[in-house]
Amino acid sequence: MSLSMYQASVPPAVHTLRALSAILGKAQAHCEVKSIDPQALLQSRLFPDMFPLTRQVQIACDMVKGGAARLGGVDIPSFPDTETSFAELQARIDRTIDFIQSVPREQIDGSEGRHIRIPLRDRTVEFDGQTYLTSWVLPNFHFHVTTAYNLLRHGGVEIGKRDFLGA
Amino acid sequence: MSLSMYQASVPPAVHTLRALSAILGKAQAHCEVKSIDPQALLQSRLFPDMFPLTRQVQIACDMVKGGAARLGGVDIPSFPDTETSFAELQARIDRTIDFIQSVPREQIDGSEGRHIRIPLRDRTVEFDGQTYLTSWVLPNFHFHVTTAYNLLRHGGVEIGKRDFLGA
Repeated sequence: MSLSMYQASVPPAVHTLRALSAILGKAQAHCEVKSIDPQALLQSRLFPDMFPLTRQVQIACDMVKGGAARLGGVDIPSFPDTETSFAELQARIDRTIDFIQSVPREQIDGSEGRHIRIPLRDRTVEFDGQTYLTSWVLPNFHFHVTTAYNLLRHGGVEIGKRDFLGA
Repeated sequence: MSLSMYQASVPPAVHTLRALSAILGKAQAHCEVKSIDPQALLQSRLFPDMFPLTRQVQIACDMVKGGAARLGGVDIPSFPDTETSFAELQARIDRTIDFIQSVPREQIDGSEGRHIRIPLRDRTVEFDGQTYLTSWVLPNFHFHVTTAYNLLRHGGVEIGKRDFLGA
């Protein structure tokens, strides 16, 4: 018995995306209760040259969208980065969950050795499927979800690590 | 072929702990160059009721220490939370790497179905080994490493996501 590539990727990603969705729900409610312009949080950054909240959510979604697609050997759908509200970010999370759940489990299972090649701006990174999942997709995904959490926490939204970990 | 519990846990954790070590090295160098009291970063928080940098590093280490021990069925060593400098945090990371590499691979492999029970302050959480790894150890570990990174980034240390992802 061992851990399947599917079990190690899609169900935990869906779980964390749902947690992110609930966190954004609390942030939106916080704005309503405190009469805060949602853009004050959506455009907030931890440092001027870091990405704002909206972009953190977009990249978190893209990490697992690309991950499930590459491991499953299907085309990566393109989601344009046009969200400007909490509702639109929620819709993107929903689309991401729908997509990664649509990739057939049997195509992700057995992808440990698949050759993955990712062109970046200034270089190309190459992995086998297993290293791609454990050293690229999951750390990157958790990084951006955590940074979204930290931005909101820093901005005064009352959330705790239990919200990040999900139900 | 599939992903082994060992492959999904110890090598990626060592990789990320080394990245965290390098990030803390850059933070210490930043303090020296800018004549900043290291405590200004070590005790920094993103919000008054969040843990400071030192504690983030301690918890990150504890997550994978407990993870490797519980999955491998060995006693969890106790590391007292006494670090007050970058050098001491580096030593804790080193001890953590040494410990998790000391847990026999063959005891972690096959732990997918092991019953894991974690007493928390106000409740007990229970998992099978696979869910413990993918939904508790890895998200928690990445959460605290990312928060350490975000604290330093917010504090003006010149690091980027490539530092988080490691070499």
